[in-house]
Amino acid sequence: MSDLIRVLVLGTGQMGAAIARLILQKNGIKLVGAYGRRSHRAGMDLGQAIGLERDLGLAIFGNLKSAVEQTRPHLAIQATCSRVEDGFSELQVLLQQGVEVISIAEEMVFPACSSPELANEIDQLARLQGVSVVGTGINPGFVLDLLVITLTGVCAHVDSITAERVNDLSPYGPTVISSQGVGLTLQTFAEGVAAGRVVGHYGFPESIHLICKALGWEPEKIEQSREPIISSVRRETPFITVEPGQVAGCHQRAVAYYQGRPVINFDHPQQVFPELEGVETGDTIEIRGIPSFSVRCRPEIPGGQATAALAVNTIPRLLKAPPGLHTVLDLPVATAMLADVRELLRVPLASGDHG
Amino acid sequence: MSDLIRVLVLGTGQMGAAIARLILQKNGIKLVGAYGRRSHRAGMDLGQAIGLERDLGLAIFGNLKSAVEQTRPHLAIQATCSRVEDGFSELQVLLQQGVEVISIAEEMVFPACSSPELANEIDQLARLQGVSVVGTGINPGFVLDLLVITLTGVCAHVDSITAERVNDLSPYGPTVISSQGVGLTLQTFAEGVAAGRVVGHYGFPESIHLICKALGWEPEKIEQSREPIISSVRRETPFITVEPGQVAGCHQRAVAYYQGRPVINFDHPQQVFPELEGVETGDTIEIRGIPSFSVRCRPEIPGGQATAALAVNTIPRLLKAPPGLHTVLDLPVATAMLADVRELLRVPLASGDHG
Repeated sequence: MSDLIRVLVLGTGQMGAAIARLILQKNGIKLVGAYGRRSHRAGMDLGQAIGLERDLGLAIFGNLKSAVEQTRPHLAIQATCSRVEDGFSELQVLLQQGVEVISIAEEMVFPACSSPELANEIDQLARLQGVSVVGTGINPGFVLDLLVITLTGVCAHVDSITAERVNDLSPYGPTVISSQGVGLTLQTFAEGVAAGRVVGHYGFPESIHLICKALGWEPEKIEQSREPIISSVRRETPFITVEPGQVAGCHQRAVAYYQGRPVINFDHPQQVFPELEGVETGDTIEIRGIPSFSVRCRPEIPGGQATAALAVNTIPRLLKAPPGLHTVLDLPVATAMLADVRELLRVPLASGDHG
Repeated sequence: MSDLIRVLVLGTGQMGAAIARLILQKNGIKLVGAYGRRSHRAGMDLGQAIGLERDLGLAIFGNLKSAVEQTRPHLAIQATCSRVEDGFSELQVLLQQGVEVISIAEEMVFPACSSPELANEIDQLARLQGVSVVGTGINPGFVLDLLVITLTGVCAHVDSITAERVNDLSPYGPTVISSQGVGLTLQTFAEGVAAGRVVGHYGFPESIHLICKALGWEPEKIEQSREPIISSVRRETPFITVEPGQVAGCHQRAVAYYQGRPVINFDHPQQVFPELEGVETGDTIEIRGIPSFSVRCRPEIPGGQATAALAVNTIPRLLKAPPGLHTVLDLPVATAMLADVRELLRVPLASGDHG
């Protein structure tokens, strides 16, 4: 069997650590090291940094170019940022050295949406170097776009799409907690939204444009709103305590219009411990068309776990893709990998000689 | 813009007719004619045969080779049969003349499962001719395999999969009604199962092997059963009347084992008018793993409508595929097509120059 697929992880925060731990459990791929933006982690052993109780003998590099030169990865998973602009220079370094890239930066799910010029540069550079790039994650990347689009495959026509994701923020750390405005007062929440500190969920425009591209709609207008979810009870996580009257999370909505009609409706209330006020978590997709039907996931597909899995499960799909920048729509779907990754790469599924 | 994509439909039964009608509604593709196995339809105008109240000026051919020579299709949709063996000679004619093929024959969803040698021949011939072949449909092809597999993409690990499809047979015609044993007595149902006349649903082995291939399981054993659903009320469709005590449908189950453990459980009761005895239709998928979650579609995705849509929606995906035999897992997912099909073919989604 061919050599192990060497993977470098960018980011040693909660997501980078989860991805690194998952790679260690998989056959056929090898974790070769990590790159961390936070300089104080450089030189630390990766095992300790990702919450294992043992050393891995793998370094965390503070310089990406050195990381690539010393670990010689086939592929890198980027878990350092949310925005294309913020991750672009890392992508340049990776691509210039011929490394394939899977990014969980939310905007990378459809980079042409926020950053058409950078998306074009990424595409050109990837083609030039003969490698591929794709963005994935639970949302954007799956629940509110890829899964929706997959379900439309059974439709002769689609009139409108309504999708709701009700989830629990309590497993998340300080970055997410603060970007969602958890623990703020009504007034500081409003100020935070106005100042861009309370951003809520990144990715509605990406999901909307991805659906529209897939179906052939051209959205004329996208309306977004962010409202505070006020708690009437005390809610406490390891990172934050929300008193009654304070903000437990951010209720974000989006509506996209096509031909003067609302065609996509997203409803995404995120808060810590929604069950404390009787709110059930879950994902719901309702398609109105021919046929009309609705799909409910209970409980909600957990975001952090699922994003790590999607990133790792995308490896064989990316390695088989032609050079260039892709979206998850351009590739066959990622699937759980319970066998050696190289087996999944070796053979196409359909023909008989490997049945 | 490039020329219209010319499509020939094989089969003028319920499914062939639904596919032909859907093609007529789509932009960028052109219905060029049909082939029918039933010789009495040859020469009839296609418009009448598919239930339109007008002529289309298109012929139904009784000879497939002539149909291809006279209509010069880019692509054909095969809706004439359920089994690879039964459809193989039609595939040969199409491929030898360089026609791409989408088949809704159930076994064609994973032809290597029932017919590894024929699958290999199809693959070789398609590669030789530079065209592609794929099988699709609601089941097998979507609910109990592609959708399941897509959902596993969020999983770090999968322990087991349970999927249930509860649907209504009342919209179906005589072929389906009789193959499901509707209207039989307990004894004639049992005799029909033994004699192979009551086959129930085709496709459990295909769906199971598709899931296993995708995930990396090797099934050791597949157990299947077919039980009669006895009606306690009178149920009447345009084609059949079921008296109390008679069979309203077929309850089919399958269990697949891997490493001595049941890893896939399928439960598929099909009957006419299940609501008459308080049975709610729907599709349910339950994944046990990391994470565990369940997904419910209500009502069930209607089989006939969805299969026609999947067949037509697969057109741009097939035309972009490399030559050879594919499964739906090897291709990006089919999506509803609300714009000109040629638009969907023209551009990749990700890069910025068409954002």
